[in-house]
Amino acid sequence: MSESVYKIIEMVGASPTSWEDATQNAIKSAGLSIRDLRIAEVEKLDMKIEDGKVALFRARVKLSFKVLSD
Amino acid sequence: MSESVYKIIEMVGASPTSWEDATQNAIKSAGLSIRDLRIAEVEKLDMKIEDGKVALFRARVKLSFKVLSD
Amino acid sequence: MSESVYKIIEMVGASPTSWEDATQNAIKSAGLSIRDLRIAEVEKLDMKIEDGKVALFRARVKLSFKVLSD
Amino acid sequence: MSESVYKIIEMVGASPTSWEDATQNAIKSAGLSIRDLRIAEVEKLDMKIEDGKVALFRARVKLSFKVLSD
Amino acid sequence: MSESVYKIIEMVGASPTSWEDATQNAIKSAGLSIRDLRIAEVEKLDMKIEDGKVALFRARVKLSFKVLSD
Amino acid sequence: MSESVYKIIEMVGASPTSWEDATQNAIKSAGLSIRDLRIAEVEKLDMKIEDGKVALFRARVKLSFKVLSD
Amino acid sequence: MSESVYKIIEMVGASPTSWEDATQNAIKSAGLSIRDLRIAEVEKLDMKIEDGKVALFRARVKLSFKVLSD
Amino acid sequence: MSESVYKIIEMVGASPTSWEDATQNAIKSAGLSIRDLRIAEVEKLDMKIEDGKVALFRARVKLSFKVLSD
Amino acid sequence: MSESVYKIIEMVGASPTSWEDATQNAIKSAGLSIRDLRIAEVEKLDMKIEDGKVALFRARVKLSFKVLSD
Amino acid sequence: MSESVYKIIEMVGASPTSWEDATQNAIKSAGLSIRDLRIAEVEKLDMKIEDGKVALFRARVKLSFKVLSD
Amino acid sequence: MSESVYKIIEMVGASPTSWEDATQNAIKSAGLSIRDLRIAEVEKLDMKIEDGKVALFRARVKLSFKVLSD
Amino acid sequence: MSESVYKIIEMVGASPTSWEDATQNAIKSAGLSIRDLRIAEVEKLDMKIEDGKVALFRARVKLSFKVLSD
Repeated sequence: MSESVYKIIEMVGASPTSWEDATQNAIKSAGLSIRDLRIAEVEKLDMKIEDGKVALFRARVKLSFKVLSD
Repeated sequence: MSESVYKIIEMVGASPTSWEDATQNAIKSAGLSIRDLRIAEVEKLDMKIEDGKVALFRARVKLSFKVLSD
Repeated sequence: MSESVYKIIEMVGASPTSWEDATQNAIKSAGLSIRDLRIAEVEKLDMKIEDGKVALFRARVKLSFKVLSD
Repeated sequence: MSESVYKIIEMVGASPTSWEDATQNAIKSAGLSIRDLRIAEVEKLDMKIEDGKVALFRARVKLSFKVLSD
Repeated sequence: MSESVYKIIEMVGASPTSWEDATQNAIKSAGLSIRDLRIAEVEKLDMKIEDGKVALFRARVKLSFKVLSD
Repeated sequence: MSESVYKIIEMVGASPTSWEDATQNAIKSAGLSIRDLRIAEVEKLDMKIEDGKVALFRARVKLSFKVLSD
Repeated sequence: MSESVYKIIEMVGASPTSWEDATQNAIKSAGLSIRDLRIAEVEKLDMKIEDGKVALFRARVKLSFKVLSD
Repeated sequence: MSESVYKIIEMVGASPTSWEDATQNAIKSAGLSIRDLRIAEVEKLDMKIEDGKVALFRARVKLSFKVLSD
Repeated sequence: MSESVYKIIEMVGASPTSWEDATQNAIKSAGLSIRDLRIAEVEKLDMKIEDGKVALFRARVKLSFKVLSD
Repeated sequence: MSESVYKIIEMVGASPTSWEDATQNAIKSAGLSIRDLRIAEVEKLDMKIEDGKVALFRARVKLSFKVLSD
Repeated sequence: MSESVYKIIEMVGASPTSWEDATQNAIKSAGLSIRDLRIAEVEKLDMKIEDGKVALFRARVKLSFKVLSD
Repeated sequence: MSESVYKIIEMVGASPTSWEDATQNAIKSAGLSIRDLRIAEVEKLDMKIEDGKVALFRARVKLSFKVLSD
């Protein structure tokens, strides 16, 4: 088993549809510059409301990715 | 930028379908008497089980709304 | 199963006797204006001390009650 | 009102689709051996990512079920 | 001093009288099958309310018991 | 010593100057409709940033006030 | 209003009877050397079990007392 | 990727040497009856002191293991 | 409403004057390389003491900023 | 680098002006009997309200100081 | 079973070698003035880094000791 | 005293030997690109288990380093 080192970054994704979709948007954005994304942990879920209705589902996530193997 | 004051109330919504729908039910109910709802933060998610199956998805949320502008 | 919405309020009750009695005082007070109280969750227990003795047991509770059925 | 005693167990369910489905898989698995499941409380939500995409939604839940009535 | 291993289980006990009694009911129920119970830690206290009065005091506890000595 | 019951509400105040001023704005707003405010506990402090500068200091507080004496 | 400074110490009291009594034993012990005890906040409640029965109710409390007025 | 369900149990291991050894004793004990142990998360570390010296390092861990694959 | 993705970074600012000033120093430093800073959430406040006096007020903050719009 | 041991005590300071001033009052009081105070960590901020206005800003802090060097 | 009262103090120990050694240094220091130390609970672990290497392992612990038996 | 600003990043290190070694691997990896690392705070400790034995000790740490002096 490798003794990899991982780094963890925190992001907030949003979607008008669902929290699953909101986290996937955060992952997609992180994936533009980071390879080897491994786990996304949900830190917080909330919703932006406009005119009495949900405008955006938002998910704050911690994303981990490998930075070093040996 | 306004120096508004916000009030925060706590509610529990339920739905047989999803947690997204459960929170929307809480927002809909709050919206009957409160205008200017702004954010719904998820405090807790759980499920009521009946006969070994999910009967209700429930979401406890904190709802914030404006009470004073200047 | 109903898809009721619940509201949650936070109160502090006190009693010279016990925390059970302190929470019951909070429930009694809330019950004067709210029907359908359902659950009281203990958030914090403390005691007021006077002359080296417990003067009051105090209980901070979250009380939930039904606000909408469908 | 009965003075039942409940036991609480902790499980992790997974699904390629949603967290709702992930928790239902945990309940289904627990339900095979435990009757009278009552509540599933969400402890943690995360996602397993593969090739930059969500491979699995995972939900860690606490399941309560009746062990004694009188 | 022994290097025992302990296991921890989580239960909810209830009583119409007090939280002390509620936890004792959980211990009594657990004690039917588990010997060597050692500590019960309170995780959460709440109350079920009916007709504006406390129907049940409930205590969620973590119970530890010895599983291995050497 | 009285066995008063207190109610707790949650508010967010804002100020361009300081967190002390932000909480005082929340207290001032609450005081328009509530007498006997007693304690304001800080739940969260944050800042809204505009053009790289702090536009508003915001404080989320829990305010307690007496609802019943005997 | 005085601008007193308070000190906070942490103690564990025990009683075979109740958590109320356990905390009162901690307060009694602290009162032997400290005057002006003011508040006891409950940090943790547990029970020591012997032969399947509660031997001791224990309460961990934070006790505050005045150390300086001006 | 499999949609396995995991169960999580909580144990306390002890060792006169180190917390690493304490957790390994908990894992060893759990492994006598459970296969497919996967992760041990540390919940709490403490030490039992005797005659002013550490008698035992203790680690409370949550152990997860697979209960169902499909 | 845009479905922006935000990134969150954690910084510690310091000031001999106040926590408001300490957080503003962190924001100023972050602003040298990051545009569109939006919110700074306080994670922790402390003080460095020298010769019995406060030498520095320090604030640990989480700063969020936009990384992707669509 | 020294292998010093530090002790941590908990105090509450108050001030009619600000939380910065409240913590400095706690530090000043602790400094009467303790040398080598090093760090004050904020545990809780609240305010005492009288006649609808802030009478006192209060800060609960943990103060650390050196007890042994080698 | 005795109804002893325990007091809890908080200390930080350090060691260039390990966290086990760091906590033992805190216990050794406390033992100079306190008898009947019983349990040391780990509150926080950190490391001081110098020139890119660990200079000190540090452990913040809560130490409990008996203050009164009856 | 300088009014430096610090940045905090989160990493996970691993080692087959100990948590001390696991954190040192995270520090070593971070040190390849970051100078002036100062403190590593432990956020979480866990273990990866293979064939009933510990394969890796893992430590999630927050690392702080100076980004600006004045």
